[in-house]
Amino acid sequence: MTKPVCTIIGVGPGNGMALARKFDEAGYALALCARSGDRMRELAAGYQSAQGYAYDATSDDDATRVFGEIADAQGPVDTVIFNAGGGAWGTIDDLTPEDLSVNLDINAVGLMRAAKTVLPQFRQQGKGNIIVISAGAAHRGRPGTLAFAAGKAAQMSLAQSLARQLGAENIHVATIVIDGVIDIPATRQRMSDKPDDFFLKPSAIADAALTLVQQDKSAWTFELDVRPFGESW
Amino acid sequence: MTKPVCTIIGVGPGNGMALARKFDEAGYALALCARSGDRMRELAAGYQSAQGYAYDATSDDDATRVFGEIADAQGPVDTVIFNAGGGAWGTIDDLTPEDLSVNLDINAVGLMRAAKTVLPQFRQQGKGNIIVISAGAAHRGRPGTLAFAAGKAAQMSLAQSLARQLGAENIHVATIVIDGVIDIPATRQRMSDKPDDFFLKPSAIADAALTLVQQDKSAWTFELDVRPFGESW
Amino acid sequence: MTKPVCTIIGVGPGNGMALARKFDEAGYALALCARSGDRMRELAAGYQSAQGYAYDATSDDDATRVFGEIADAQGPVDTVIFNAGGGAWGTIDDLTPEDLSVNLDINAVGLMRAAKTVLPQFRQQGKGNIIVISAGAAHRGRPGTLAFAAGKAAQMSLAQSLARQLGAENIHVATIVIDGVIDIPATRQRMSDKPDDFFLKPSAIADAALTLVQQDKSAWTFELDVRPFGESW
Amino acid sequence: MTKPVCTIIGVGPGNGMALARKFDEAGYALALCARSGDRMRELAAGYQSAQGYAYDATSDDDATRVFGEIADAQGPVDTVIFNAGGGAWGTIDDLTPEDLSVNLDINAVGLMRAAKTVLPQFRQQGKGNIIVISAGAAHRGRPGTLAFAAGKAAQMSLAQSLARQLGAENIHVATIVIDGVIDIPATRQRMSDKPDDFFLKPSAIADAALTLVQQDKSAWTFELDVRPFGESW
Repeated sequence: MTKPVCTIIGVGPGNGMALARKFDEAGYALALCARSGDRMRELAAGYQSAQGYAYDATSDDDATRVFGEIADAQGPVDTVIFNAGGGAWGTIDDLTPEDLSVNLDINAVGLMRAAKTVLPQFRQQGKGNIIVISAGAAHRGRPGTLAFAAGKAAQMSLAQSLARQLGAENIHVATIVIDGVIDIPATRQRMSDKPDDFFLKPSAIADAALTLVQQDKSAWTFELDVRPFGESW
Repeated sequence: MTKPVCTIIGVGPGNGMALARKFDEAGYALALCARSGDRMRELAAGYQSAQGYAYDATSDDDATRVFGEIADAQGPVDTVIFNAGGGAWGTIDDLTPEDLSVNLDINAVGLMRAAKTVLPQFRQQGKGNIIVISAGAAHRGRPGTLAFAAGKAAQMSLAQSLARQLGAENIHVATIVIDGVIDIPATRQRMSDKPDDFFLKPSAIADAALTLVQQDKSAWTFELDVRPFGESW
Repeated sequence: MTKPVCTIIGVGPGNGMALARKFDEAGYALALCARSGDRMRELAAGYQSAQGYAYDATSDDDATRVFGEIADAQGPVDTVIFNAGGGAWGTIDDLTPEDLSVNLDINAVGLMRAAKTVLPQFRQQGKGNIIVISAGAAHRGRPGTLAFAAGKAAQMSLAQSLARQLGAENIHVATIVIDGVIDIPATRQRMSDKPDDFFLKPSAIADAALTLVQQDKSAWTFELDVRPFGESW
Repeated sequence: MTKPVCTIIGVGPGNGMALARKFDEAGYALALCARSGDRMRELAAGYQSAQGYAYDATSDDDATRVFGEIADAQGPVDTVIFNAGGGAWGTIDDLTPEDLSVNLDINAVGLMRAAKTVLPQFRQQGKGNIIVISAGAAHRGRPGTLAFAAGKAAQMSLAQSLARQLGAENIHVATIVIDGVIDIPATRQRMSDKPDDFFLKPSAIADAALTLVQQDKSAWTFELDVRPFGESW
């Protein structure tokens, strides 16, 4: 039997890798996407059913090309997990309008590129999932996260518009709002004084994503927040 | 091995019954609570590990008495699911201040009674879960749901205060925001023209509750919404 | 010409006194209400057009009696400012369910008592205003403000239900969300190390209330937040 | 005495014209900005103290150039009202990623361009106001307003980040959330069956903007919603 395909856009050392492991274990074929195609192909080699693709979330062409390649090589996509991120941090004094543009382009326009490109496949098969990895900043602007927060706010709004339209077509759009610091080597090094409990485990975030994809359609979630149990919020 | 105890407060024909089935299947002993103790004992008889209790969510005495009886008969409680509801519907023209009081008492003060009473047990065992069955009305007041919405808003606020305090003590407080109409005989009869897809299945809501209880503590959810896939929102 | 009557429920040393001054200056007759009728009558004596009334926001009878007395003595009410407050502070460890009940009763049921009682007058004259003095806690529960926040959340929900119903009847229901510490002798003494700029001036809050009452009905505000310019939020 | 300068970015037939009239009456000199400099100069000729400028909110160069010209010709700016808008409407089926980009660029990056450019002037004079004309869509994404809503959500987030940083520097950033249809010839024609009461009067929106600029700094508002009294919401 053909495995359903899970496309992960933005596969870094944290959530992306954990999502790959989780969806592989759950029986999905993986389409692993990031700017470096070499890194993705290398990673894909470690799984039985996976392919790697060079995909820049800010490129219209990449969306068209990669979703075409996935369809050819692996079949129609069942689930897209949009985990692309990046962009500049700082206050209005540190950042340029261009920095804000880049954040909006990756987070919001990037999601629209992926959603619009995969939509015909979803409609043809009468189902599909889009899981957006969001952040607490989607709901609050703060001086030092000015550009990131605006990008996540625009992305959340877009996800909501899509969820409201596409639900009735059996296409589930949902968001995971991460509130806290993810446990990856870079954050561990930067915050070496913090205890284990301070960090969100990527595998637990991947659990949340899998749960969303597996929900009975009579009770779909649009938004689910996750934070470490000891987090002060 | 002793089964962990799941106390369900407010066991009606919809969510309550479904929660009982789901948590029984997941290996919990059930403490089934509703105003009619007879109905609860009858229901409990259908499970291998269950007891029924007469519990009025508006009574301080009942909270103290029933959590004591559960501890004696079934051991310390692991999970409380607060599903008590009821109270009057209508606009300011239809309702009295007393009607609003009753809604606030069941939904908000009732949750506080249960939480405060079970808290010493949770602290002694160093863990625990409180799952609150909430509704979309928690986030918006509307003319015809004036009292229900105020009750759910107060309950949500209380749940958030508790979650923020108790998380660091390894006690998980979470809410399930139901947005739509639950599939029970009464709603089916009242909306007999609606298709199956219009209704939320209680078993799917129970899935969400079990998911919350099973989350890794590095990524706890406070609030999760559920609605039928075709719901216009 | 008869002055329009502004009824202020909950006249303490901060907002209440400032609201009285502001609405007197703006040409309103004042109906000053608080639990101590003597204090209100004394205060009323300092204004040309004012009366004082003993009014307990938790009493159905007081609402009926006082709005009747105001109608007899001063004519129909144009504006109600609901500034009643009080109730206990603390966490779930400090407070009883009864403490929560009292907060809900003053803030939410108290507002409903006043609104339901004044509504026939408003409808008869085809207009009216209800201004609710709310707080940032209406939108977030926190451990140490558990009961206050739940009371304000319920009150905000109720105000929204009322605004949505009554707007079309030319009755303006609006809320002022105070985010910060009000400048009164008690807070000054308790936080004697804080600079002037830390505090919200009651007269500025009263300005906001007057603005709401004077809005053109083609652009009514439901919710307006106020905080000191230097407040970190 | 020199009049304070109010710069209005985005002067169309509705809010922009009304804001100009209101701030002129209130004693401000006007710097009127829109893509068509000719139209702005023509409009400016009708006021005693006004200048018109060609300003494209999507251009970094225009922000630098125009704020420089204003400073030279009219002196330092006291208030910026960001009313730029436009961009495409429709669902994901109607719009391209580029359409979304344009909406984000006008609404969010455009605000950042203006804010970052005027900030040194504000800091030099130790005060300033930025009033953002927002919309209900800032808080909810819907299928047919996908791009507009994302633009307003990003703009609101940015405004909040700025307000939180700049408040302590005596720079007031505030938003007016318009919920409803503005009364201009184009909307009147498109909705010719609607009664007068259905529409928001631009002059009433301008009142709200002036109120925000005149607030005592001990009680600044960040967000204020406005809607017609009969609006169903």
